[in-house]
Amino acid sequence: MALRTLSERDTGRRKDGSLAGRTARRRVQRITLPHGGGPGKAASRADFLAAEEPLGIRVGGTALTMTMRTPGDDIELAAGFLVSEAVVRSPADITGIKLCDGTSCGHGDHDGLGNIVDVTLAPGVTVAPGAWRSFMTTSACGVCGKASVEDICVVPHGALAADPARFAPAVLATLPERLREAQRVFSRTGGLHAAGLFTAGGELIAAREDVGRHNAVDKVVGWALLDGRLPLAGCVLLVSGRASFELVQKAILAGIPLLAAVSAPSSLAVDLAEEAGLTLVGFLRGPSMNVYTGAHRVSA
Amino acid sequence: MALRTLSERDTGRRKDGSLAGRTARRRVQRITLPHGGGPGKAASRADFLAAEEPLGIRVGGTALTMTMRTPGDDIELAAGFLVSEAVVRSPADITGIKLCDGTSCGHGDHDGLGNIVDVTLAPGVTVAPGAWRSFMTTSACGVCGKASVEDICVVPHGALAADPARFAPAVLATLPERLREAQRVFSRTGGLHAAGLFTAGGELIAAREDVGRHNAVDKVVGWALLDGRLPLAGCVLLVSGRASFELVQKAILAGIPLLAAVSAPSSLAVDLAEEAGLTLVGFLRGPSMNVYTGAHRVSA
Repeated sequence: MALRTLSERDTGRRKDGSLAGRTARRRVQRITLPHGGGPGKAASRADFLAAEEPLGIRVGGTALTMTMRTPGDDIELAAGFLVSEAVVRSPADITGIKLCDGTSCGHGDHDGLGNIVDVTLAPGVTVAPGAWRSFMTTSACGVCGKASVEDICVVPHGALAADPARFAPAVLATLPERLREAQRVFSRTGGLHAAGLFTAGGELIAAREDVGRHNAVDKVVGWALLDGRLPLAGCVLLVSGRASFELVQKAILAGIPLLAAVSAPSSLAVDLAEEAGLTLVGFLRGPSMNVYTGAHRVSA
Repeated sequence: MALRTLSERDTGRRKDGSLAGRTARRRVQRITLPHGGGPGKAASRADFLAAEEPLGIRVGGTALTMTMRTPGDDIELAAGFLVSEAVVRSPADITGIKLCDGTSCGHGDHDGLGNIVDVTLAPGVTVAPGAWRSFMTTSACGVCGKASVEDICVVPHGALAADPARFAPAVLATLPERLREAQRVFSRTGGLHAAGLFTAGGELIAAREDVGRHNAVDKVVGWALLDGRLPLAGCVLLVSGRASFELVQKAILAGIPLLAAVSAPSSLAVDLAEEAGLTLVGFLRGPSMNVYTGAHRVSA
């Protein structure tokens, strides 16, 4: 049951039809109960599952974090994570980023790339204590019932208020279907979250998938960072599930003025979006949507 | 925008119909596009959202972790987290567990309970370096493409293999509806994950909800721990979403022989379930289900 070795380049389709590294075949017993009651029928078959493996992110040789992710776009995932933690803002902040090649740990017998991304930051770029940690360690009084959003996030007040972008509801309504079309893996496994970056005109710029909602967003943001596209002014980020506080924070740090979710936002997601001037759309399904904050950007 | 103070006891229904602490009202602009095209209609209304707030867990006065959770059942959430991290196994391992009352931080002006749970462990019970951390720091060679499940989890091989429980598909098929019935908050916000603990006969033992999938499971497991019910031999745990590696690990550490998910499992979830002897059921919807591991416990 050893985890397979994976490579950024190993994303083609295998002979058995699976997407190498991103899906995995397992035997499954499918049980179907008859309508009228009585014993069900069982049939054994092969099923494609979304692959899930641990990815470690090291900065300057020191372990920073570990995430369970769907292999693929690992470099982008690591880069996006660093944007979301407010560590980097431009490609120049990262001087080196690569999958561990199995030599840096002192062993020479590795046959492929692994599940660790090594990042080297430019001089002067440092990993500050994370927002979570500072909440625990610096807002000692605030945590006892008087914490505020400002205490637990790294987003400046009104960060996106000046973005003049406007979005048409008729365009927004088309985005979930466009994102689903872009999800190659989803149709096969049914188990992946997706994040899609769109222009205000509804053109898909980038889409990424992962077993983790946060990872899918980090992969999109990391791609944009490495492609020199941050901040993502005028863009829409669509996520396939709910909009949590953390996803709102990621969108804001990437400079995205509109975050849309297929499902519900949380209370804190709405509060943070309001604070930063982000337009937050939820329940984007069929011909309707809920605009929770920044409604001036969405004119019905 | 200060976070409201919350209390374990503050879970009643307010005058405006919201569940105090667990839901929050926000204004929303609902946009509906007409079928034939043309401008949409916008209407402003109040909407109930799932509350999301940070919860810190301190052990012996030291910050251990932070999670974004839906307030309520915070003591149970903290207790369940410690089970899932393999720190505690019985109620006796915890000698004290309480919501910070606002006095331990040296300030006397707090008007309620807060967003920190303080845990005191029994002598000899310690927080070992977590599974994630040990993956990063001790399996140096393994991480470069040769990591195995054993390296990143704390579950012993065959942990559940001896559990003789058997489950009828006809009973399993009824569980999702029973869990939905138990979800008081879901119907109002559409934004919460749920975890339900059932007997093999399909009787609901406990159900908890949260904006975070892991938190919902930790709340159920923590309740069981504090009620002296661990290990949960013969029980079914049903989760409303996907089955990830982490949820499988939580089920195993709680001694639950069958984990069922409404949606798909990941590859690593299946591998870990197989390794531990857990029965893993996915896509439990309507009259059908997929049995990925431990099919001997589910006889069609």
